[in-house]
Amino acid sequence: MRNTALFLLSAGLISTSFALQAPEAAQADSPKQSKNLIVMIGDGMGPAEITAARYYAKTHLGQDHLALDSFYVGKATTFSQQSPYSTESGAVTDSAAAGTAFSTGHKTYNNAISVSNEDAAKPFASVIEAAMKQGKATGLVSTDNITGATPAVWASHVRLRHNQNAIASQYLDSGVNVFFGGGKVNFVTKEEKGKRTDKSIIADFEAKGYKTAFDKKGLEAIPANSGKALGLFASAEIPYVLDRDENTPSLKDMATKAIDILSKNKNGFVMMVEGGRIDHSGHANDLPANVQETLDFDNAVKAVMDFAKKDGNTSVVITADHETGGLSLGINNVYELNVDLWNKEKHSYEYLDKALEEAKTADDVKKIVAENTGFTDLTDEELAFILKGDGSSYKRAGAYNAVVSKRLAVGWTGHGHTAVDVGVWAYGPIASLVKGDVDNTDIAKNGAKVIGADLQAATTALQDKYLYPMFKTTRDNKIMFPVKALADDLGIAVKNDDAAKLVTLSKGSVKLTVSLANGEVKVNDKAADFAGEVDNGKLYLPLEAFNKLTGANMSWDALSERIVLK
Amino acid sequence: MRNTALFLLSAGLISTSFALQAPEAAQADSPKQSKNLIVMIGDGMGPAEITAARYYAKTHLGQDHLALDSFYVGKATTFSQQSPYSTESGAVTDSAAAGTAFSTGHKTYNNAISVSNEDAAKPFASVIEAAMKQGKATGLVSTDNITGATPAVWASHVRLRHNQNAIASQYLDSGVNVFFGGGKVNFVTKEEKGKRTDKSIIADFEAKGYKTAFDKKGLEAIPANSGKALGLFASAEIPYVLDRDENTPSLKDMATKAIDILSKNKNGFVMMVEGGRIDHSGHANDLPANVQETLDFDNAVKAVMDFAKKDGNTSVVITADHETGGLSLGINNVYELNVDLWNKEKHSYEYLDKALEEAKTADDVKKIVAENTGFTDLTDEELAFILKGDGSSYKRAGAYNAVVSKRLAVGWTGHGHTAVDVGVWAYGPIASLVKGDVDNTDIAKNGAKVIGADLQAATTALQDKYLYPMFKTTRDNKIMFPVKALADDLGIAVKNDDAAKLVTLSKGSVKLTVSLANGEVKVNDKAADFAGEVDNGKLYLPLEAFNKLTGANMSWDALSERIVLK
Repeated sequence: MRNTALFLLSAGLISTSFALQAPEAAQADSPKQSKNLIVMIGDGMGPAEITAARYYAKTHLGQDHLALDSFYVGKATTFSQQSPYSTESGAVTDSAAAGTAFSTGHKTYNNAISVSNEDAAKPFASVIEAAMKQGKATGLVSTDNITGATPAVWASHVRLRHNQNAIASQYLDSGVNVFFGGGKVNFVTKEEKGKRTDKSIIADFEAKGYKTAFDKKGLEAIPANSGKALGLFASAEIPYVLDRDENTPSLKDMATKAIDILSKNKNGFVMMVEGGRIDHSGHANDLPANVQETLDFDNAVKAVMDFAKKDGNTSVVITADHETGGLSLGINNVYELNVDLWNKEKHSYEYLDKALEEAKTADDVKKIVAENTGFTDLTDEELAFILKGDGSSYKRAGAYNAVVSKRLAVGWTGHGHTAVDVGVWAYGPIASLVKGDVDNTDIAKNGAKVIGADLQAATTALQDKYLYPMFKTTRDNKIMFPVKALADDLGIAVKNDDAAKLVTLSKGSVKLTVSLANGEVKVNDKAADFAGEVDNGKLYLPLEAFNKLTGANMSWDALSERIVLK
Repeated sequence: MRNTALFLLSAGLISTSFALQAPEAAQADSPKQSKNLIVMIGDGMGPAEITAARYYAKTHLGQDHLALDSFYVGKATTFSQQSPYSTESGAVTDSAAAGTAFSTGHKTYNNAISVSNEDAAKPFASVIEAAMKQGKATGLVSTDNITGATPAVWASHVRLRHNQNAIASQYLDSGVNVFFGGGKVNFVTKEEKGKRTDKSIIADFEAKGYKTAFDKKGLEAIPANSGKALGLFASAEIPYVLDRDENTPSLKDMATKAIDILSKNKNGFVMMVEGGRIDHSGHANDLPANVQETLDFDNAVKAVMDFAKKDGNTSVVITADHETGGLSLGINNVYELNVDLWNKEKHSYEYLDKALEEAKTADDVKKIVAENTGFTDLTDEELAFILKGDGSSYKRAGAYNAVVSKRLAVGWTGHGHTAVDVGVWAYGPIASLVKGDVDNTDIAKNGAKVIGADLQAATTALQDKYLYPMFKTTRDNKIMFPVKALADDLGIAVKNDDAAKLVTLSKGSVKLTVSLANGEVKVNDKAADFAGEVDNGKLYLPLEAFNKLTGANMSWDALSERIVLK
C-alpha cells in the first residue's frame, strides 16, 4: 500500500495529508487476500497437550519450542448446540459439531456433519466447497480415517457422523482433488475386509482420474501433476507414530505430497490437514502416544509453514476442535512432571491391547509393562487393576495407561472431550482476522474471507439440492418423514382438525388429508396408495406424499439419508 | 508519530519519502510508552478456569463473554528452575517463582521471592521497584494475604516465601504507596492474634504517613489524596466471594480505591492487582468458589480497563502464574457440563469446613450437603468418603468438593499446580509487546520497557546492598555461611590443602586459614575468636570471617535472612 501512496504523492495526484492516511484506511476496509488457504486441525489438541509436547521437545529433542509456537495468535471457544438425539446441551463439543463450525461457520449439534440443527436439517457449505466454485484445487489429509468427522465436514453432509460409507461416496462426487488418510474400510466391501454393502468404490475414484496409493512408497510415487489422488494408508486409523513401520507415511509426508499436487493449480488451493490421533491417544489417556502425535502434527506444521513462507500467497490457520481426556500436567500435590520418563514407552496402548487382553496372570502383565516401559515397580494393586480393567471400553489398556500416567506425573479426568478453549495459530493475511478471543465459527468465516470465497452462495446451491430430515423406518422398511418439519420447508400448509382426527396438507391446488385414526391418505379426495403413521404424537408420511403436494420429483438417497430435492 | 511526520512535511523540513517511512521505522525502534502500568494476576487462573467462568456468566449472568475476553493477546510459559531445597525440577512452578519471573524478568526456583537461584542468592528488582526510581507511585492489591508470594515478589526479597513477617517489614521500607489485601497476621503480634514475635508494625506504617483501613467502610473513607495507604481486610486471606459479608471489600473495591490514590501522582503509577483466591479454591477443588473468584477478578478487570480507556496513558497486562488443581471441564465419557448447577453452592468448602469436621454421622454430612448445595442424592459410599476425608490436607472438605465436582461434571487431577501455559491479556501499548507465545519473564521485561523503567539499574542498586546466602544455624544459634558460595561473590580466593586439612581464604593482604580438623581459624596467623564448621562436606564460617577478609562491615538481617552489604 505504501508504494501506491508514494506513487500518488510523487505524481502529485493527492494531498500529502490524504496520502499519509490512505494506507491504513485501505487496509482496514479490504484485508489482504491469499490465493491459498491451509487449515490444520490438531484433533483433541488442548492447551495442556501443547505444553506437554513442548516439554518433551525441550527435554528429549533439544528444541525450546514447537514449530507452531511462534504462530500463536489467540484462542477459540468450542461449544456446540443442544442435540436432538440426546440430552447433551452442547457444553462439550464433539469433532463433528466443532468441525462443522470451523469448516462452514455454523454451530450445530454433536454428530452432525455440516448440516443444520433442525428436524429437517439443511446442508452448510464448507470453505472447501466454496473454494471449488472459484476453481481452486482442494484436499483433505488426516492420520484418522479420511471419512472421520474432521475431514468429513469439509466435503460431505450427513445427519450422523457414523455414516462413513455415505461420506466416502459423497467424496467421490465432491470434486475434492486429494484425499490422504486412513479408513480404507469405508471404500471397500466385506470381501476386501471393508464395511460397504453396496460395492467397492476405489475403482470409481480411479475412473474419475484419481491416482491411488496404499502405502508410503505408493504415496511417494504419485506424480505432482496428477491433479487428483486418493491415498488410503490404513484399513482404519493410521497407526500411532509409536507403532508405525516404514510403509506408513507421516502426516508431514501426506501434507507435503498434497501441497505438491494442489499447488500446481493456477487458481490456488484450499487444504485441511488433521492430526487425528492426538484425540485418540487422549481418549485412551496414553500420554507418550499423545505427545508423539502432537509432534507429528508439529512436523507437518513446520513443512506447511515452510511452503507458505516460500510461496508468499498462502494463509495458514491452525486450531483444535476440543481438548480430549482432561489432561493436566501435574497430579496430586507434587510440583513435578517426570518428563525424563516420557520417552520410555516403546509402543502405544493400542499395540499392546491384544497382549494385555490375553494376559493370564499378574506376572504376564508385569512382563508386558516392563518390556514396553521399563517400569518394574508395579504394585500388586496396580497389576490387579490392569487385569481388571479400568471399567471403560479401553479395559485393560485403559488401566495400563492410568498406571503409566501416574508415573509420568500427568492426570486425566476421563476418556471423553472437555470444554476448555483451544489455541489458534496463524500465518499470512488470515492471522490478523483470527487473533485474540474468537469462536471456532470465525475460522471458517475468515478462511472464506481471506480467499474471497462465497460461503453463502455455496450453501444456497447445496440447500437447493438436498434436505436432511429426521426420518423413521417402518417395520416394512418404508422411509417416513415428520410432516411438520418437512411441510415448513416445502411451503406446505398444515391444518389440524382435532374433532375429526384429520390433518390436511395443502399447497397450490393439491390437498392431502390424513386420518389420524387409521393413517388413510386422500389426495384431492381420492384414496392414495400410501398411508400416514403417528409415532410419539408426530405424524409421518412417505416422500410420495410430499411429491404429490409439491409436484416435485424428490427422491430418497438411502445411503446419505437425505432427500434429493431435484 | 503521524502528527510529527505531518508537521515536518508541512514545514518542508524533510522529503515526502522519508516522512512516509519515518512513522513505522520510529515505532519499531521505540514502541509507544505508557505513563501508567497495571499488572493483573489471576493466581491459578489456567485456561479451564477461564472457560468455566465464561460458561457460568453465559448461563447465570446473561453475559456471552468475560470482561477480559476481548483483551486476549497470547499465552505464556510458566516453568521455573531446579530447586536447591528439593528434587523439584521446575517443570511445575509455584507462585513465588512465577511471580519473580513476571515481576523481575528472571527465572528462579520455587519458593524464591525475587532472588536468584544461587547458593548466595542475589535480589532482582521488580518493575515496581524500578518505577519508584522514576518517581512513579506504586501499589499492591490482593484478595490473598498481602504478604503472599504474588504481591511479595514486587516489593520484597527473601529466599523462602513463608517468611511473611520479613515481607511485611520489607514493605514498610519499600516506598510502595498502597497495600490493600488480607494478611493482618504478619503485621501484628500474638497479642493481636498475629504471627510477629518482634512488634506490631501497623503504627510504623502510620508514622510513615500510611492511612490505614481494616474493613470496607474504612477503605471507602480513605481520601484519594492520601498518598499512602495500608488496608488489611482480613486476618489471613480475604474471605471467598461466596462467604463475604458487607464489611469485606471486593477486588474491584480495592483496585478502584488504589487507582484513585495512585493516579494522583503526576509521574504516573504502577500497580499489581491479584485475584489470589482463584488459586486457593483450585487447590481445594471447589469449582463454584473458583468460578466466583474468577468473576470477582473479571469485575476488577472491567474497572481497570474502564480507567485505562478513559485515562489514555495506561498499559494493562493480565496473566496467571500457573493453573491450579488440574481442572477440566468434562469428566468420564460424558459430553456435558452441568453448568445449571454451578450456582447451587451457598458457601465455599472453607466456610463449611468446621461443620464437616464436626459431623458425627453420615446423616450430619447429608444435612450439610443438602443445605449448602441442594444435592440430596448422595450415596452411602459418598457419605462415607466425606466422613473419611480425601486423604489430603483438605480432609472432609476435600472429599466434599470431589463429591460436588462430580455432580457439576468437572474433574480435577490433584490439589497442586499444573504446568499448562497460561493466558495473556493486554490493553494499551504493552499489548503488541506481549502478544503470541511468550514466557512469563516477558511480562516484566516489557512492563519495564513500556514505562521506560530501568530494571537493570534497580537490580544493581539492590545487589549492592543485599545478599541472600544459604546459611545454617548452629546449636548455639550462630549463623554460619557456606564459604565457597560467599567467597565467590566477595572476591575472596579459596585454596584447599587436603594433606594439611587446611583451607586458606585470602583477599588483598588478609589471609584466613581454617582447620578442617577442628574448625580453628587464624587471621593473618593469629588465632581468631570464631571457628569454622564442616557440614555435609561444606565449610561454613560466620559473617565476622568475611568482614575480616573484606574489611567491610556487613551485618546479618535475621528477620529477612540476608546479609546487609553496606
